[in-house]
Amino acid sequence: MVKIDGDRLVESLSTLRGFGATGNGVVRPTFSALDMEARSWLRDQMQSAELDASIDGVGNVFGRSTNPGPALILGSHSDTQPRGGWLDGALGVMYAIEVARALAEDPGTSHLAVDAVSWADEEATYTSCLGSRSFVGTLPAEALQDANAEGESVAQALERVGLAGRPRQRLEPDRHIGYLEAHIEQGPKLEAAGLRIGAVTSIVGIRGATVTFAGQQNHAGTTPMELRADAGVAMFEYGVRLRQRMQSVAGPTSVWTIGNARVEPGAASIIPGFAELIIQFRDPDDATLSAMSDTVMAVADELNTEGPVRVTVEPTRSPIAPTVMDSELRAHITEAAERVVPGQWIEMPSAAGHDPMALTPHLRCAMLFIPSIGGISHDFAEDSIHDDIVTGCQVLAEATVSILEQAKG
Amino acid sequence: MVKIDGDRLVESLSTLRGFGATGNGVVRPTFSALDMEARSWLRDQMQSAELDASIDGVGNVFGRSTNPGPALILGSHSDTQPRGGWLDGALGVMYAIEVARALAEDPGTSHLAVDAVSWADEEATYTSCLGSRSFVGTLPAEALQDANAEGESVAQALERVGLAGRPRQRLEPDRHIGYLEAHIEQGPKLEAAGLRIGAVTSIVGIRGATVTFAGQQNHAGTTPMELRADAGVAMFEYGVRLRQRMQSVAGPTSVWTIGNARVEPGAASIIPGFAELIIQFRDPDDATLSAMSDTVMAVADELNTEGPVRVTVEPTRSPIAPTVMDSELRAHITEAAERVVPGQWIEMPSAAGHDPMALTPHLRCAMLFIPSIGGISHDFAEDSIHDDIVTGCQVLAEATVSILEQAKG
Repeated sequence: MVKIDGDRLVESLSTLRGFGATGNGVVRPTFSALDMEARSWLRDQMQSAELDASIDGVGNVFGRSTNPGPALILGSHSDTQPRGGWLDGALGVMYAIEVARALAEDPGTSHLAVDAVSWADEEATYTSCLGSRSFVGTLPAEALQDANAEGESVAQALERVGLAGRPRQRLEPDRHIGYLEAHIEQGPKLEAAGLRIGAVTSIVGIRGATVTFAGQQNHAGTTPMELRADAGVAMFEYGVRLRQRMQSVAGPTSVWTIGNARVEPGAASIIPGFAELIIQFRDPDDATLSAMSDTVMAVADELNTEGPVRVTVEPTRSPIAPTVMDSELRAHITEAAERVVPGQWIEMPSAAGHDPMALTPHLRCAMLFIPSIGGISHDFAEDSIHDDIVTGCQVLAEATVSILEQAKG
Repeated sequence: MVKIDGDRLVESLSTLRGFGATGNGVVRPTFSALDMEARSWLRDQMQSAELDASIDGVGNVFGRSTNPGPALILGSHSDTQPRGGWLDGALGVMYAIEVARALAEDPGTSHLAVDAVSWADEEATYTSCLGSRSFVGTLPAEALQDANAEGESVAQALERVGLAGRPRQRLEPDRHIGYLEAHIEQGPKLEAAGLRIGAVTSIVGIRGATVTFAGQQNHAGTTPMELRADAGVAMFEYGVRLRQRMQSVAGPTSVWTIGNARVEPGAASIIPGFAELIIQFRDPDDATLSAMSDTVMAVADELNTEGPVRVTVEPTRSPIAPTVMDSELRAHITEAAERVVPGQWIEMPSAAGHDPMALTPHLRCAMLFIPSIGGISHDFAEDSIHDDIVTGCQVLAEATVSILEQAKG
């Protein structure tokens, strides 16, 4: 059994945290000066792990094993949210380097090929999954014009940080047999269940809709109740019914959220003539997502037949389909978890998005989660306990070895 | 039976409309140049109706009959909303002058004393019911510092238009036995019922509250449904329950409105951590208003015991108590209505505010309504049909005569 070095892992995670450390959190947005310093440091770390490392033309830090394939890519991202935590992304990148080191140090595994990566801009400071889309060849030229909040485009940023014109790392179909990513759960399930490892079954799909309510604006004093077409009243009724109806079509891990609600004109003495809700729902199963979409529509149809307010549903323009993890790779993860922490793992969907959404179906992918304290993420308070951090890396190392050994036959 | 001159009435209403006519509406806010021109014209009109007329130190145009008392004050206001209709206020002022003329022209009534008035700033461009509050001595000195949307105070405006320092007209308790005001309904009830006159029973009281919902903002993907404290969900539930509960405590003319609803932060993928509703309700009866207040609180209490979101009710700081019209004066109006348009009148509350709110209890007040086409008011489209305009004035004249004759004994 290959053995990772937990102290070395945690120490390098702490060093990476230093690039942009702010309170207990990290501010290291894509292509900031601190992000570029971190990428250079990561490249050096990969080099010292005996990988052939470079930063490519879109900012991916890629460490290619000098061993011949079949190779497994391990990694995640090192950019952060505007006010991010220290483990989101960073954990999976440092796991990749630690696994590469551990395998290289062990004569029994030093012949195996692990390529390590930190993908550029997973957090969509400029454009989501910039690096992984570039890697599999699905990044459209227009995406280079996508801009950050300050209006700087990807193309301008690459020019500024000196990456413009560099070659881009690309998938090598004859060499790369799959991609493994470890990540913090970013939710409370593992902690609440007292478990150590989540083997991700799929990344949930996301759909949504804007629901509008067109009534008749009028004087809140002189308009009798029975003559009103109050858009706000219809909106409240919609909100309550949607919640009831969704419960009957939802799967065990479905979530649905009305993230925004507003009425116009929004004055105390005026009956609202217009209202709007923004709905989002997520599930790992496309059929469940469709049933939820149908429910969003059905509640609108009901209200349209019952009252004077006209309800209209506009589905979100870019729904995200569920991304199913490769079942063979996942089996290696669950078997490794069972060896390292017997009985303390589950299979679970990922409710948040990750680079495998861009990599699949060009590359077989699997993911593992470690617990997040309090389920908190995208926040300075994000954290995980030391033992979980070390355990996750050990599971990843074991799965990597078993996958590569099986591939070599 | 005294006879008003319908053609003369409508012609003078049209002339008054000319001061600020904009499309089908009128823009004549308090103390604007057009408003002051209209006041001067009204003073001249009163003078030509044999009244001793002047503009007082707060802008009231007051035409005092040269006959000895007992006197009845008739009137309304000639200022408009920012985008007002041509009859809101103007109708009652021109009725007053027409009734004064008609009584003076008839030897049987020429000895009766009718004082006519156009109160300043009923529409609260600067401060609500400026003129009527001044008249009964309840205008606090601070109110002269209240400002319009451009930041000009009442005091500054009075200086600008040359009224500062002029004496203010005051109630003469030995002379004034009451106040009658005619107004458009500003609602749809008379038109919908095919009636011609509404005898106002009271001006509704207004109460309200801001209801806030404090939950836990969280990630809309990774937070399971059962672990959420969604402020928006509580807000929708509150809205639906309030509607159901209000129906069981409401009176026949109660209205209640949730005029604003919002959630924070209001993003598609974030569970709202905060939400807020603004509620307003109106009724002619104080006990009903109290029952409605209790209901607003009771629904909050229910939700506080049921779920994780904390619901807080903050009552509106300046509730308005109902203003009951004088029953004797009202009886004269209903008897006059029955003579002029038999069976085509009702008693009804006023759902909008008027100067009698300020005049009561210093002066006995009564009001009559004529129908508003489509119930529309505070809008350029506001209008009433010609016959209703003439009929209302005839009813007012008859009521005026019978009140004054009875008072003379």
